[in-house]
Amino acid sequence: MVWAEGTLAMLDQRLLPREERWLDLRTWEQVADAIHDMAVRGAPAIGVASAYGMALAAVQGADRSVADAGLRATRPTAVNLFWALDRIASVSECSPEAILAEARAIEAEDEAMCERIAANGVGLVPAGSSVLTICNTGALATAGVGTALGIVRRGWQEGRIAHVFACETRPRMQGLRLTAWELMQEGISFEAIADGAAAALMAKGRVGIVLAGADRIAANGDTANKLGTYSLAVLARHHGVPFVVAAPSSTIDASSPDGSAIVIEERAAEEITEIEGVRVAPTNCPVWNPAFDVTPGSLIDAIVDERAVYRPPFAMAGDR
Amino acid sequence: MVWAEGTLAMLDQRLLPREERWLDLRTWEQVADAIHDMAVRGAPAIGVASAYGMALAAVQGADRSVADAGLRATRPTAVNLFWALDRIASVSECSPEAILAEARAIEAEDEAMCERIAANGVGLVPAGSSVLTICNTGALATAGVGTALGIVRRGWQEGRIAHVFACETRPRMQGLRLTAWELMQEGISFEAIADGAAAALMAKGRVGIVLAGADRIAANGDTANKLGTYSLAVLARHHGVPFVVAAPSSTIDASSPDGSAIVIEERAAEEITEIEGVRVAPTNCPVWNPAFDVTPGSLIDAIVDERAVYRPPFAMAGDR
Repeated sequence: MVWAEGTLAMLDQRLLPREERWLDLRTWEQVADAIHDMAVRGAPAIGVASAYGMALAAVQGADRSVADAGLRATRPTAVNLFWALDRIASVSECSPEAILAEARAIEAEDEAMCERIAANGVGLVPAGSSVLTICNTGALATAGVGTALGIVRRGWQEGRIAHVFACETRPRMQGLRLTAWELMQEGISFEAIADGAAAALMAKGRVGIVLAGADRIAANGDTANKLGTYSLAVLARHHGVPFVVAAPSSTIDASSPDGSAIVIEERAAEEITEIEGVRVAPTNCPVWNPAFDVTPGSLIDAIVDERAVYRPPFAMAGDR
Repeated sequence: MVWAEGTLAMLDQRLLPREERWLDLRTWEQVADAIHDMAVRGAPAIGVASAYGMALAAVQGADRSVADAGLRATRPTAVNLFWALDRIASVSECSPEAILAEARAIEAEDEAMCERIAANGVGLVPAGSSVLTICNTGALATAGVGTALGIVRRGWQEGRIAHVFACETRPRMQGLRLTAWELMQEGISFEAIADGAAAALMAKGRVGIVLAGADRIAANGDTANKLGTYSLAVLARHHGVPFVVAAPSSTIDASSPDGSAIVIEERAAEEITEIEGVRVAPTNCPVWNPAFDVTPGSLIDAIVDERAVYRPPFAMAGDR
């Protein structure tokens, strides 16, 4: 994301990797649409985008509470969205300059948090091992090097990580489209796999660690993340593979004692029945399409944020 | 599959559900291509098709051993292929009529076996429960009502099954394309899900039993089946959900003491990187794409064939 002269420019992630098209957003409504329609996704990136959306609202002279409510209504699960909007709401001054300064601060802090998450987490990766990832938790999902994928980048640079297996992550294929794109740009050795291949890989002893991101972490460590994450956590435990969650502290929702309170977004059937606009399923095929699942803290071996590495039993607290 | 006047007609499953196009196969080479390219798939159906392929070879006056070798080379994992070709090879008479009669017998027996599998297996389904399936194990995969899906049909007719969840089954989407198509034709209540959603469903207590087919069952019950089956077995055990394999005895490979001897077919990267001809992944994205995985017998609560329901520890024997 790039802010310049009252415009928020962002790469339209729906078109990657085929096309690198930038969207120029000039209103908070356009930012809300970009979040809702997943032109931008990834919990930290959603938070940063929403903050800039409030900056645009200020430039527009739009009603601050209307813009705040509209941005909050875009996606229910990633708590970074609400966290960022709370921060913007706490800015007492209403000038565009003041709001923009806070948005820029949120972005800069996210970038710095990514670096610290990578530094804190890299030691958890068994030396010389392969990492299994899900969804996209990299530069596209954050304002920095990423969360789980930031650890991968750093581990690769340090020679600690030998290979990455990227779950393609149905239905929207963020692994196959976005993580693969980032890994290829970085020259990191990897293979994309169908989500159903993760268990077979683990049975072969080919996975040293699973690194996942998070959309919301409850106080007891229960973690909402991309659909399929919980499956990987169960499989990892069965195979004795460490399962680690990496996220900035802005992802922690200390007001949720456990995962049962987390609202799980259900998305349109077409995400399953059509791919890239091509219909795969029979007409009117019924579908259950939750965007996220909840991994109980009891299956998580460590949670890494910018402050520390936490071990179970978890008692997670936000940073403010 | 329909044999008439020296032609084997089969529905091209690659085009379903969008188009119901029948292929008219007149040579064993065309049958080999249809198996290799997955116009026909499903272990029992592959066995039946290969037998008719040998009948076509006899009508052609082709070299019997060349046709046998050519058909055996199509796909390595489903043992029904080799079982059917062994049966054809055991026909001492070389006339087209004799070979065709054996092919017809194999087809008729498979149809009857499906009925008996359904009758044997339906009692395993907890009354009023929902069934989770993977891939396609129905009429398209067999010469009859199907294996796991045959149990579903019967359980639905008897009012025992309330609902079905069909894993879409990446990469080739046999669940989303074929199982959904069959379930809609039968009017059975169901939803298609991303493969990664199975764990979340189980955690919600919404899965009463997992019913899977098989491509090869070793003597100790280790079962090769569509990629992702092993994942479901681990998840089912974790959640206390029964995991059952349904297959005709022609799927049992008693000569393999365990799953380690089973050859797992690896297929083209394009099955992952492209969907319906549309590229999803970055150009040159590396991929690991095994077609099957092996579920250890220790995770299987029952194996159902046309003879009986077997319980662990398994000591599986073929029927001849």
